[in-house]
Amino acid sequence: MTDARDRDRLYSMMTAGVVRWVPVLQVGSDDPSAPMDAVATEEPLQVQVDGKPFAVIMRTPGADRELSIGFLLAERVITSVADVQEIRREPGQRNLVDVSVTDAATARLEDLHRTRRQVTTNSSCGLCGRVTIESLQVEAPPIRADWVIPSSLVRQLPDTVRLAQVGFEQTGGLHAAALVGRDGRLELLAEDVGRHNAVDKVIGQMVLGDRLPLEHSILFCSGRTSFEIVQKAFLAGIPLVAAVSAPSSLAIELASEAGITLLGFVRGRRFNVYSHSWRVNVD
Amino acid sequence: MTDARDRDRLYSMMTAGVVRWVPVLQVGSDDPSAPMDAVATEEPLQVQVDGKPFAVIMRTPGADRELSIGFLLAERVITSVADVQEIRREPGQRNLVDVSVTDAATARLEDLHRTRRQVTTNSSCGLCGRVTIESLQVEAPPIRADWVIPSSLVRQLPDTVRLAQVGFEQTGGLHAAALVGRDGRLELLAEDVGRHNAVDKVIGQMVLGDRLPLEHSILFCSGRTSFEIVQKAFLAGIPLVAAVSAPSSLAIELASEAGITLLGFVRGRRFNVYSHSWRVNVD
Repeated sequence: MTDARDRDRLYSMMTAGVVRWVPVLQVGSDDPSAPMDAVATEEPLQVQVDGKPFAVIMRTPGADRELSIGFLLAERVITSVADVQEIRREPGQRNLVDVSVTDAATARLEDLHRTRRQVTTNSSCGLCGRVTIESLQVEAPPIRADWVIPSSLVRQLPDTVRLAQVGFEQTGGLHAAALVGRDGRLELLAEDVGRHNAVDKVIGQMVLGDRLPLEHSILFCSGRTSFEIVQKAFLAGIPLVAAVSAPSSLAIELASEAGITLLGFVRGRRFNVYSHSWRVNVD
Repeated sequence: MTDARDRDRLYSMMTAGVVRWVPVLQVGSDDPSAPMDAVATEEPLQVQVDGKPFAVIMRTPGADRELSIGFLLAERVITSVADVQEIRREPGQRNLVDVSVTDAATARLEDLHRTRRQVTTNSSCGLCGRVTIESLQVEAPPIRADWVIPSSLVRQLPDTVRLAQVGFEQTGGLHAAALVGRDGRLELLAEDVGRHNAVDKVIGQMVLGDRLPLEHSILFCSGRTSFEIVQKAFLAGIPLVAAVSAPSSLAIELASEAGITLLGFVRGRRFNVYSHSWRVNVD
Protein backbone atom coordinates (compact mmCIF):
# COMPACT_ATOMS: atom_id res chain seq x y z
CA MET A 1 0.00 0.00 0.00
CA THR A 2 2.87 2.39 0.51
CA ASP A 3 4.44 1.21 -2.76
CA ALA A 4 4.74 4.06 -5.28
CA ARG A 5 3.45 1.91 -8.13
CA ASP A 6 0.37 0.90 -6.18
CA ARG A 7 -0.18 4.52 -5.36
CA ASP A 8 0.00 5.59 -8.98
CA ARG A 9 -2.42 2.85 -9.88
CA LEU A 10 -4.74 4.03 -7.14
CA TYR A 11 -4.81 7.56 -8.46
CA SER A 12 -5.03 6.61 -12.12
CA MET A 13 -8.13 4.57 -11.33
CA MET A 14 -9.95 7.74 -10.39
CA THR A 15 -11.86 9.70 -12.96
CA ALA A 16 -11.66 13.45 -13.11
CA GLY A 17 -15.36 14.00 -12.50
CA VAL A 18 -17.85 14.25 -9.71
CA VAL A 19 -19.17 10.75 -10.27
CA ARG A 20 -17.24 7.54 -10.68
CA TRP A 21 -18.48 4.13 -11.70
CA VAL A 22 -17.41 1.17 -9.57
CA PRO A 23 -18.20 -2.53 -9.60
CA VAL A 24 -20.74 -3.46 -6.94
CA LEU A 25 -22.56 -6.52 -5.70
CA GLN A 26 -26.21 -5.58 -5.24
CA VAL A 27 -27.70 -7.97 -2.70
CA GLY A 28 -31.48 -8.31 -2.85
CA SER A 29 -31.75 -6.24 -6.02
CA ASP A 30 -34.46 -6.98 -8.56
CA ASP A 31 -31.96 -6.16 -11.29
CA PRO A 32 -28.88 -8.32 -10.82
CA SER A 33 -27.77 -7.26 -14.31
CA ALA A 34 -26.50 -3.91 -12.99
CA PRO A 35 -23.02 -4.69 -11.70
CA MET A 36 -21.79 -1.07 -11.71
CA ASP A 37 -22.77 1.70 -9.32
CA ALA A 38 -22.18 5.47 -9.54
CA VAL A 39 -20.43 6.82 -6.45
CA ALA A 40 -19.41 10.33 -5.46
CA THR A 41 -15.75 11.02 -6.14
CA GLU A 42 -13.68 11.96 -3.10
CA GLU A 43 -10.09 13.16 -3.51
CA PRO A 44 -7.75 15.28 -1.43
CA LEU A 45 -7.20 18.89 -2.48
CA GLN A 46 -4.08 20.61 -1.26
CA VAL A 47 -4.63 24.33 -0.81
CA GLN A 48 -1.46 26.39 -0.81
CA VAL A 49 -1.15 30.05 0.08
CA ASP A 50 1.78 31.81 -1.59
CA GLY A 51 3.34 28.43 -2.40
CA LYS A 52 3.14 27.06 1.14
CA PRO A 53 0.82 24.20 2.18
CA PHE A 54 -2.17 25.55 4.09
CA ALA A 55 -4.64 22.65 4.25
CA VAL A 56 -5.63 19.35 2.71
CA ILE A 57 -9.37 19.15 2.12
CA MET A 58 -11.11 15.89 1.25
CA ARG A 59 -13.48 17.00 -1.48
CA THR A 60 -15.34 16.12 -4.66
CA PRO A 61 -13.36 17.53 -7.62
CA GLY A 62 -14.92 20.47 -9.42
CA ALA A 63 -15.05 24.15 -8.46
CA ASP A 64 -11.67 23.74 -6.77
CA ARG A 65 -10.82 27.43 -7.16
CA GLU A 66 -14.15 28.38 -5.63
CA LEU A 67 -13.71 25.86 -2.81
CA SER A 68 -10.25 27.22 -2.02
CA ILE A 69 -11.47 30.81 -1.95
CA GLY A 70 -14.56 30.02 0.12
CA PHE A 71 -12.37 28.06 2.52
CA LEU A 72 -9.87 30.91 2.89
CA LEU A 73 -12.77 33.30 3.57
CA ALA A 74 -14.16 30.97 6.27
CA GLU A 75 -10.65 30.72 7.74
CA ARG A 76 -10.51 34.51 7.62
CA VAL A 77 -7.26 34.57 5.68
CA ILE A 78 -9.05 36.65 3.03
CA THR A 79 -12.02 38.95 3.53
CA SER A 80 -12.86 39.69 -0.12
CA VAL A 81 -11.60 39.15 -3.65
CA ALA A 82 -9.38 42.22 -3.18
CA ASP A 83 -7.11 40.03 -1.02
CA VAL A 84 -6.61 37.54 -3.86
CA GLN A 85 -3.81 38.26 -6.34
CA GLU A 86 -3.73 35.05 -8.36
CA ILE A 87 -5.15 31.55 -8.29
CA ARG A 88 -2.78 29.09 -9.90
CA ARG A 89 -3.20 25.48 -10.95
CA GLU A 90 -0.23 23.44 -12.13
CA PRO A 91 -0.77 21.43 -15.32
CA GLY A 92 -1.18 17.77 -14.41
CA GLN A 93 -1.67 18.55 -10.71
CA ARG A 94 -5.39 18.43 -10.42
CA ASN A 95 -5.39 18.14 -6.65
CA LEU A 96 -3.46 21.33 -5.98
CA VAL A 97 -4.54 24.98 -5.90
CA ASP A 98 -2.15 27.80 -5.07
CA VAL A 99 -3.58 31.15 -4.01
CA SER A 100 -1.39 34.26 -3.98
CA VAL A 101 -2.65 36.86 -1.55
CA THR A 102 -1.96 40.47 -0.63
CA ASP A 103 0.37 41.55 2.15
CA ALA A 104 -2.61 42.25 4.39
CA ALA A 105 -3.84 38.66 3.95
CA THR A 106 -0.33 37.30 4.50
CA ALA A 107 -0.24 39.16 7.81
CA ARG A 108 -3.56 37.57 8.82
CA LEU A 109 -2.21 34.17 7.81
CA GLU A 110 0.90 34.63 9.94
CA ASP A 111 -1.28 35.65 12.83
CA LEU A 112 -3.33 32.51 12.27
CA HIS A 113 -0.26 30.31 12.37
CA ARG A 114 0.99 32.01 15.49
CA THR A 115 -2.26 31.51 17.41
CA ARG A 116 -3.16 28.12 15.97
CA ARG A 117 0.16 26.42 15.61
CA GLN A 118 -0.52 23.59 18.02
CA VAL A 119 -3.89 22.73 16.60
CA THR A 120 -4.09 20.23 13.80
CA THR A 121 -7.81 20.03 13.21
CA ASN A 122 -11.24 21.01 14.35
CA SER A 123 -13.25 17.97 13.39
CA SER A 124 -12.58 14.46 14.38
CA CYS A 125 -11.03 12.66 11.46
CA GLY A 126 -8.04 10.61 10.58
CA LEU A 127 -6.33 12.70 7.94
CA CYS A 128 -5.69 15.93 9.74
CA GLY A 129 -2.58 17.76 8.86
CA ARG A 130 -1.35 15.52 6.10
CA VAL A 131 0.71 18.10 4.30
CA THR A 132 1.24 16.19 1.10
CA ILE A 133 -1.26 14.25 -0.90
CA GLU A 134 1.26 11.50 -1.43
CA SER A 135 1.25 10.64 2.25
CA LEU A 136 -2.42 9.68 2.40
CA GLN A 137 -1.93 5.97 2.58
CA VAL A 138 -1.57 4.58 6.03
CA GLU A 139 1.07 2.21 7.17
CA ALA A 140 -0.71 -0.68 8.81
CA PRO A 141 -0.93 -4.13 7.16
CA PRO A 142 -4.20 -5.15 5.44
CA ILE A 143 -6.85 -6.81 7.60
CA ARG A 144 -6.86 -10.59 7.21
CA ALA A 145 -9.78 -11.73 9.41
CA ASP A 146 -11.45 -14.54 7.48
CA TRP A 147 -14.89 -14.87 8.99
CA VAL A 148 -18.08 -14.82 6.94
CA ILE A 149 -21.52 -13.52 7.94
CA PRO A 150 -24.89 -14.35 6.37
CA SER A 151 -26.70 -11.58 4.46
CA SER A 152 -29.60 -11.98 6.91
CA LEU A 153 -27.34 -10.54 9.62
CA VAL A 154 -26.61 -7.50 7.46
CA ARG A 155 -30.32 -6.90 6.92
CA GLN A 156 -30.90 -6.87 10.68
CA LEU A 157 -28.22 -4.26 11.36
CA PRO A 158 -30.37 -1.11 10.93
CA ASP A 159 -33.06 -2.38 13.31
CA THR A 160 -30.50 -3.59 15.83
CA VAL A 161 -28.86 -0.20 15.93
CA ARG A 162 -31.94 2.00 15.63
CA LEU A 163 -33.38 0.74 18.90
CA ALA A 164 -30.38 2.24 20.67
CA GLN A 165 -30.40 5.57 18.85
CA VAL A 166 -32.16 7.42 21.64
CA GLY A 167 -30.89 10.85 20.71
CA PHE A 168 -31.73 10.50 17.02
CA GLU A 169 -35.23 9.43 17.96
CA GLN A 170 -35.67 12.73 19.79
CA THR A 171 -33.89 15.13 17.46
CA GLY A 172 -33.42 13.67 13.98
CA GLY A 173 -30.08 15.47 14.19
CA LEU A 174 -27.62 12.92 15.54
CA HIS A 175 -25.40 10.47 13.72
CA ALA A 176 -24.71 7.07 15.23
CA ALA A 177 -21.82 4.66 15.07
CA ALA A 178 -22.14 1.17 16.48
CA LEU A 179 -19.96 -1.83 16.99
CA VAL A 180 -21.85 -5.05 16.34
CA GLY A 181 -20.37 -8.50 16.94
CA ARG A 182 -20.20 -10.90 14.03
CA ASP A 183 -22.95 -12.81 15.84
CA GLY A 184 -25.19 -9.78 15.24
CA ARG A 185 -25.28 -8.51 18.81
CA LEU A 186 -24.92 -4.79 19.53
CA GLU A 187 -21.70 -4.20 21.47
CA LEU A 188 -21.51 -0.42 21.69
CA LEU A 189 -23.21 2.66 20.30
CA ALA A 190 -22.41 6.37 20.31
CA GLU A 191 -24.31 9.34 18.98
CA ASP A 192 -22.91 12.69 17.92
CA VAL A 193 -23.64 15.63 15.62
CA GLY A 194 -20.50 14.51 13.75
CA ARG A 195 -20.23 11.12 12.08
CA HIS A 196 -16.49 11.00 12.66
CA ASN A 197 -16.93 11.79 16.34
CA ALA A 198 -19.43 8.95 16.79
CA VAL A 199 -16.88 6.53 15.29
CA ASP A 200 -14.09 7.91 17.49
CA LYS A 201 -16.26 7.48 20.58
CA VAL A 202 -16.93 3.77 20.05
CA ILE A 203 -13.38 3.00 18.97
CA GLY A 204 -12.00 5.14 21.82
CA GLN A 205 -13.97 3.13 24.37
CA MET A 206 -12.48 -0.07 22.94
CA VAL A 207 -8.97 1.42 23.10
CA LEU A 208 -9.50 2.26 26.78
CA GLY A 209 -10.57 -1.36 27.40
CA ASP A 210 -7.45 -2.55 25.55
CA ARG A 211 -9.66 -4.41 23.09
CA LEU A 212 -7.89 -3.57 19.82
CA PRO A 213 -7.66 -4.98 17.17
CA LEU A 214 -11.44 -5.29 16.83
CA GLU A 215 -11.13 -8.25 14.49
CA HIS A 216 -14.51 -9.74 15.36
CA SER A 217 -16.56 -6.56 15.06
CA ILE A 218 -18.64 -4.78 12.45
CA LEU A 219 -18.70 -0.97 12.37
CA PHE A 220 -22.15 0.31 11.49
CA CYS A 221 -22.60 4.01 10.63
CA SER A 222 -25.83 5.92 10.20
CA GLY A 223 -24.65 8.17 7.38
CA ARG A 224 -22.29 8.14 4.44
CA THR A 225 -18.88 6.52 4.43
CA SER A 226 -15.89 8.75 3.75
CA PHE A 227 -12.23 7.84 3.38
CA GLU A 228 -11.69 8.97 6.95
CA ILE A 229 -14.25 6.62 8.42
CA VAL A 230 -12.70 3.65 6.64
CA GLN A 231 -9.29 4.81 7.84
CA LYS A 232 -10.51 4.89 11.45
CA ALA A 233 -11.89 1.35 11.07
CA PHE A 234 -8.60 0.25 9.53
CA LEU A 235 -6.50 1.62 12.38
CA ALA A 236 -8.79 -0.19 14.83
CA GLY A 237 -8.55 -3.47 12.88
CA ILE A 238 -12.27 -3.69 12.00
CA PRO A 239 -12.85 -6.06 9.03
CA LEU A 240 -16.35 -4.95 8.00
CA VAL A 241 -17.88 -1.47 7.69
CA ALA A 242 -21.58 -1.06 6.91
CA ALA A 243 -23.46 2.18 6.42
CA VAL A 244 -27.02 3.29 5.81
CA SER A 245 -25.95 5.60 3.01
CA ALA A 246 -23.42 5.84 0.17
CA PRO A 247 -19.64 5.44 0.32
CA SER A 248 -17.29 7.80 -1.49
CA SER A 249 -14.93 6.62 -4.20
CA LEU A 250 -11.91 6.97 -1.91
CA ALA A 251 -13.63 5.06 0.89
CA ILE A 252 -14.04 2.16 -1.55
CA GLU A 253 -10.41 2.43 -2.72
CA LEU A 254 -9.08 2.32 0.80
CA ALA A 255 -11.40 -0.52 1.86
CA SER A 256 -10.25 -2.57 -1.15
CA GLU A 257 -6.58 -1.99 -0.35
CA ALA A 258 -6.98 -2.45 3.40
CA GLY A 259 -8.80 -5.79 3.27
CA ILE A 260 -12.04 -4.29 4.59
CA THR A 261 -15.50 -5.38 3.45
CA LEU A 262 -17.48 -2.20 2.73
CA LEU A 263 -21.28 -2.21 2.59
CA GLY A 264 -23.51 0.71 1.63
CA PHE A 265 -27.22 1.55 1.45
CA VAL A 266 -27.91 -1.01 4.17
CA ARG A 267 -31.65 -0.47 4.58
CA GLY A 268 -34.65 -2.71 4.13
CA ARG A 269 -34.00 -5.91 2.18
CA ARG A 270 -31.24 -4.55 -0.05
CA PHE A 271 -27.65 -3.53 0.36
CA ASN A 272 -24.56 -3.02 -1.79
CA VAL A 273 -21.15 -4.64 -1.32
CA TYR A 274 -18.25 -2.55 -2.63
CA SER A 275 -15.20 -4.55 -1.57
CA HIS A 276 -14.14 -7.97 -0.26
CA SER A 277 -17.61 -9.39 -0.78
CA TRP A 278 -16.45 -12.86 0.28
CA ARG A 279 -17.15 -11.92 3.92
CA VAL A 280 -20.89 -11.81 3.15
CA ASN A 281 -22.57 -15.11 2.37
CA VAL A 282 -25.24 -14.26 -0.17
CA ASP A 283 -27.41 -17.35 -0.29
CA MET B 1 -21.37 39.07 20.84
CA THR B 2 -17.81 39.42 22.04
CA ASP B 3 -19.01 40.71 25.39
CA ALA B 4 -17.97 38.39 28.22
CA ARG B 5 -21.39 38.59 29.86
CA ASP B 6 -23.16 37.62 26.65
CA ARG B 7 -20.75 34.76 26.27
CA ASP B 8 -21.42 33.50 29.75
CA ARG B 9 -25.12 33.74 29.09
CA LEU B 10 -24.64 31.81 25.85
CA TYR B 11 -22.86 28.97 27.59
CA SER B 12 -25.12 28.88 30.60
CA MET B 13 -28.06 28.42 28.23
CA MET B 14 -26.67 25.07 27.18
CA THR B 15 -27.66 21.92 28.96
CA ALA B 16 -25.16 19.25 29.83
CA GLY B 17 -26.80 16.53 27.77
CA VAL B 18 -27.01 15.16 24.29
CA VAL B 19 -30.37 16.76 23.63
CA ARG B 20 -31.47 20.30 24.27
CA TRP B 21 -34.94 21.82 24.08
CA VAL B 22 -35.33 25.04 22.13
CA PRO B 23 -38.29 27.22 21.20
CA VAL B 24 -39.39 26.65 17.61
CA LEU B 25 -42.04 27.90 15.22
CA GLN B 26 -43.49 24.87 13.44
CA VAL B 27 -44.94 26.07 10.14
CA GLY B 28 -47.57 23.77 8.62
CA SER B 29 -47.68 21.53 11.68
CA ASP B 30 -50.92 19.84 12.68
CA ASP B 31 -49.97 20.41 16.30
CA PRO B 32 -49.26 24.11 16.82
CA SER B 33 -49.33 23.49 20.58
CA ALA B 34 -45.76 22.11 20.50
CA PRO B 35 -43.60 25.22 20.70
CA MET B 36 -40.44 23.40 21.83
CA ASP B 37 -38.21 21.14 19.75
CA ALA B 38 -35.45 18.76 20.82
CA VAL B 39 -32.16 19.46 19.04
CA ALA B 40 -28.80 17.74 19.19
CA THR B 41 -26.34 19.54 21.45
CA GLU B 42 -23.17 20.75 19.77
CA GLU B 43 -20.33 22.17 21.86
CA PRO B 44 -16.59 22.53 21.35
CA LEU B 45 -14.31 20.09 23.14
CA GLN B 46 -10.73 21.13 23.66
CA VAL B 47 -8.41 18.12 23.65
CA GLN B 48 -5.08 18.73 25.34
CA VAL B 49 -2.09 16.41 25.31
CA ASP B 50 0.19 16.80 28.33
CA GLY B 51 -1.42 20.16 29.12
CA LYS B 52 -0.97 21.63 25.65
CA PRO B 53 -3.86 22.35 23.25
CA PHE B 54 -4.02 19.71 20.52
CA ALA B 55 -7.40 20.21 18.85
CA VAL B 56 -10.85 21.68 19.24
CA ILE B 57 -13.56 19.26 18.17
CA MET B 58 -17.17 20.32 17.64
CA ARG B 59 -19.02 17.48 19.29
CA THR B 60 -22.09 16.35 21.17
CA PRO B 61 -21.18 16.11 24.89
CA GLY B 62 -20.96 12.62 26.33
CA ALA B 63 -18.19 10.02 26.06
CA ASP B 64 -15.67 12.85 25.91
CA ARG B 65 -12.86 10.67 27.25
CA GLU B 66 -13.64 8.02 24.64
CA LEU B 67 -13.86 10.64 21.87
CA SER B 68 -10.50 12.09 22.86
CA ILE B 69 -8.83 8.68 22.90
CA GLY B 70 -10.41 7.56 19.62
CA PHE B 71 -9.36 10.84 18.06
CA LEU B 72 -5.76 10.49 19.27
CA LEU B 73 -5.70 6.96 17.85
CA ALA B 74 -6.96 8.18 14.46
CA GLU B 75 -4.32 10.95 14.59
CA ARG B 76 -1.78 8.27 15.40
CA VAL B 77 -0.54 10.04 18.52
CA ILE B 78 -1.38 6.89 20.47
CA THR B 79 -1.50 3.33 19.17
CA SER B 80 -3.05 1.62 22.20
CA VAL B 81 -4.10 2.23 25.78
CA ALA B 82 -0.49 1.55 26.82
CA ASP B 83 0.38 5.01 25.47
CA VAL B 84 -2.16 6.66 27.79
CA GLN B 85 -0.98 7.57 31.30
CA GLU B 86 -3.90 9.62 32.57
CA ILE B 87 -7.08 11.25 31.31
CA ARG B 88 -7.90 14.33 33.32
CA ARG B 89 -11.00 16.49 33.48
CA GLU B 90 -11.01 19.73 35.44
CA PRO B 91 -14.03 20.28 37.70
CA GLY B 92 -16.31 22.85 36.10
CA GLN B 93 -14.55 22.59 32.74
CA ARG B 94 -16.83 20.26 30.88
CA ASN B 95 -15.43 21.12 27.47
CA LEU B 96 -11.84 20.20 28.25
CA VAL B 97 -10.06 16.84 28.34
CA ASP B 98 -6.34 16.51 29.09
CA VAL B 99 -4.58 13.30 28.12
CA SER B 100 -1.14 12.50 29.53
CA VAL B 101 0.82 10.19 27.27
CA THR B 102 4.03 8.17 27.35
CA ASP B 103 7.34 9.43 26.04
CA ALA B 104 6.89 7.33 22.88
CA ALA B 105 3.59 9.05 22.16
CA THR B 106 5.08 12.45 22.94
CA ALA B 107 7.75 11.75 20.33
CA ARG B 108 5.06 10.90 17.76
CA LEU B 109 3.22 14.09 18.66
CA GLU B 110 6.33 16.19 18.17
CA ASP B 111 6.88 14.50 14.83
CA LEU B 112 3.30 15.36 13.94
CA HIS B 113 3.77 19.01 14.80
CA ARG B 114 6.97 19.15 12.82
CA THR B 115 5.45 17.70 9.65
CA ARG B 116 2.04 19.33 9.96
CA ARG B 117 2.81 22.70 11.42
CA GLN B 118 1.50 24.70 8.48
CA VAL B 119 -1.73 22.83 8.18
CA THR B 120 -4.70 24.09 10.09
CA THR B 121 -7.38 21.64 9.08
CA ASN B 122 -8.39 18.85 6.80
CA SER B 123 -12.05 19.53 6.35
CA SER B 124 -13.58 22.70 5.11
CA CYS B 125 -15.00 24.54 8.05
CA GLY B 126 -14.88 27.87 9.73
CA LEU B 127 -13.53 27.04 13.15
CA CYS B 128 -10.25 25.39 12.39
CA GLY B 129 -7.51 25.88 14.83
CA ARG B 130 -9.35 27.87 17.42
CA VAL B 131 -7.12 27.09 20.34
CA THR B 132 -9.36 28.29 23.09
CA ILE B 133 -13.04 27.71 23.49
CA GLU B 134 -13.47 31.32 24.57
CA SER B 135 -12.54 32.58 21.13
CA LEU B 136 -15.36 30.82 19.28
CA GLN B 137 -17.47 33.87 18.65
CA VAL B 138 -16.75 35.70 15.46
CA GLU B 139 -16.20 39.38 15.14
CA ALA B 140 -18.53 40.60 12.40
CA PRO B 141 -21.63 42.70 13.19
CA PRO B 142 -25.06 40.98 13.17
CA ILE B 143 -26.90 40.79 9.86
CA ARG B 144 -29.58 43.49 9.56
CA ALA B 145 -31.24 42.77 6.17
CA ASP B 146 -34.95 43.39 6.74
CA TRP B 147 -36.67 41.60 3.87
CA VAL B 148 -39.47 39.09 4.39
CA ILE B 149 -40.33 36.02 2.28
CA PRO B 150 -43.63 34.13 2.13
CA SER B 151 -43.71 30.59 3.55
CA SER B 152 -44.74 29.37 0.09
CA LEU B 153 -41.26 30.29 -1.15
CA VAL B 154 -39.69 28.18 1.61
CA ARG B 155 -41.84 25.19 0.65
CA GLN B 156 -40.60 25.43 -2.95
CA LEU B 157 -36.91 25.43 -1.98
CA PRO B 158 -36.35 21.63 -1.96
CA ASP B 159 -37.86 21.17 -5.43
CA THR B 160 -36.01 24.21 -6.81
CA VAL B 161 -32.71 22.82 -5.63
CA ARG B 162 -33.29 19.13 -6.29
CA LEU B 163 -33.67 19.67 -10.03
CA ALA B 164 -30.07 20.88 -10.10
CA GLN B 165 -28.63 18.09 -7.92
CA VAL B 166 -27.32 16.07 -10.84
CA GLY B 167 -24.64 14.24 -8.89
CA PHE B 168 -26.93 13.30 -6.01
CA GLU B 169 -29.43 11.93 -8.50
CA GLN B 170 -26.75 9.55 -9.75
CA THR B 171 -25.03 8.58 -6.52
CA GLY B 172 -27.16 9.35 -3.47
CA GLY B 173 -23.82 10.30 -1.94
CA LEU B 174 -23.39 14.01 -2.54
CA HIS B 175 -24.39 16.96 -0.40
CA ALA B 176 -25.60 20.14 -2.05
CA ALA B 177 -25.47 23.80 -1.09
CA ALA B 178 -27.39 26.36 -3.09
CA LEU B 179 -27.82 30.09 -3.13
CA VAL B 180 -31.40 31.08 -3.88
CA GLY B 181 -32.50 34.67 -4.40
CA ARG B 182 -35.22 36.04 -2.15
CA ASP B 183 -37.43 35.91 -5.26
CA GLY B 184 -37.06 32.11 -5.11
CA ARG B 185 -34.80 31.74 -8.13
CA LEU B 186 -31.79 29.39 -7.98
CA GLU B 187 -28.59 31.43 -8.26
CA LEU B 188 -25.88 28.84 -7.73
CA LEU B 189 -25.47 25.22 -6.67
CA ALA B 190 -22.51 23.06 -5.73
CA GLU B 191 -22.27 19.39 -4.82
CA ASP B 192 -19.63 17.70 -2.71
CA VAL B 193 -19.09 14.68 -0.48
CA GLY B 194 -18.67 17.26 2.30
CA ARG B 195 -21.44 19.63 3.33
CA HIS B 196 -18.96 22.28 4.36
CA ASN B 197 -17.17 22.05 1.03
CA ALA B 198 -20.41 22.55 -0.90
CA VAL B 199 -21.07 25.73 1.09
CA ASP B 200 -17.50 26.97 0.53
CA LYS B 201 -17.85 26.36 -3.21
CA VAL B 202 -20.94 28.53 -3.65
CA ILE B 203 -19.69 31.27 -1.33
CA GLY B 204 -16.23 31.11 -2.93
CA GLN B 205 -17.72 31.72 -6.36
CA MET B 206 -19.51 34.79 -5.02
CA VAL B 207 -16.28 36.06 -3.42
CA LEU B 208 -14.53 35.73 -6.78
CA GLY B 209 -17.32 37.75 -8.41
CA ASP B 210 -16.95 40.38 -5.65
CA ARG B 211 -20.58 39.84 -4.69
CA LEU B 212 -20.29 39.85 -0.90
CA PRO B 213 -22.18 40.58 1.32
CA LEU B 214 -24.88 38.23 0.00
CA GLU B 215 -27.62 40.20 1.70
CA HIS B 216 -30.37 39.19 -0.74
CA SER B 217 -29.64 35.47 -0.80
CA ILE B 218 -30.84 32.35 0.96
CA LEU B 219 -28.39 29.52 1.67
CA PHE B 220 -30.06 26.13 1.23
CA CYS B 221 -28.25 22.98 2.43
CA SER B 222 -29.16 19.38 1.78
CA GLY B 223 -28.12 18.03 5.18
CA ARG B 224 -27.89 19.12 8.76
CA THR B 225 -26.86 22.56 9.95
CA SER B 226 -23.81 22.80 12.19
CA PHE B 227 -22.29 25.83 13.89
CA GLU B 228 -19.70 25.97 11.12
CA ILE B 229 -22.24 26.24 8.34
CA VAL B 230 -24.00 29.13 10.06
CA GLN B 231 -20.60 30.75 10.62
CA LYS B 232 -19.81 30.53 6.90
CA ALA B 233 -23.17 32.10 6.06
CA PHE B 234 -22.50 34.82 8.63
CA LEU B 235 -19.10 35.71 7.20
CA ALA B 236 -20.70 35.94 3.74
CA GLY B 237 -23.54 38.14 5.02
CA ILE B 238 -26.36 35.69 4.21
CA PRO B 239 -29.54 36.52 6.20
CA LEU B 240 -31.40 33.21 5.86
CA VAL B 241 -30.18 29.62 6.09
CA ALA B 242 -32.53 26.73 5.31
CA ALA B 243 -31.75 23.02 5.52
CA VAL B 244 -33.48 19.75 4.75
CA SER B 245 -32.46 18.30 8.09
CA ALA B 246 -31.92 19.32 11.72
CA PRO B 247 -29.78 22.14 13.11
CA SER B 248 -27.50 21.68 16.09
CA SER B 249 -27.95 23.63 19.30
CA LEU B 250 -24.89 25.78 18.59
CA ALA B 251 -26.05 26.49 15.03
CA ILE B 252 -29.24 27.93 16.55
CA GLU B 253 -27.31 29.93 19.16
CA LEU B 254 -25.08 31.51 16.55
CA ALA B 255 -27.96 32.22 14.15
CA SER B 256 -29.86 33.96 16.95
CA GLU B 257 -26.89 36.11 17.87
CA ALA B 258 -25.85 36.83 14.28
CA GLY B 259 -29.25 38.03 13.08
CA ILE B 260 -29.72 35.01 10.80
CA THR B 261 -33.07 33.32 10.19
CA LEU B 262 -32.50 29.57 10.56
CA LEU B 263 -34.92 27.02 9.10
CA GLY B 264 -34.75 23.26 9.51
CA PHE B 265 -36.57 20.16 8.27
CA VAL B 266 -37.58 22.03 5.12
CA ARG B 267 -39.36 19.23 3.28
CA GLY B 268 -42.91 18.81 2.02
CA ARG B 269 -45.46 21.25 3.50
CA ARG B 270 -43.77 21.67 6.86
CA PHE B 271 -40.68 23.38 8.19
CA ASN B 272 -39.32 24.69 11.49
CA VAL B 273 -38.08 28.21 12.22
CA TYR B 274 -35.44 28.39 14.96
CA SER B 275 -34.42 32.04 14.95
CA HIS B 276 -35.49 35.48 13.65
CA SER B 277 -38.80 34.11 12.41
CA TRP B 278 -39.94 37.62 11.36
CA ARG B 279 -38.25 37.08 7.98
CA VAL B 280 -40.81 34.38 7.12
CA ASN B 281 -44.36 35.55 6.55
CA VAL B 282 -46.54 32.71 7.84
CA ASP B 283 -49.99 33.54 6.52
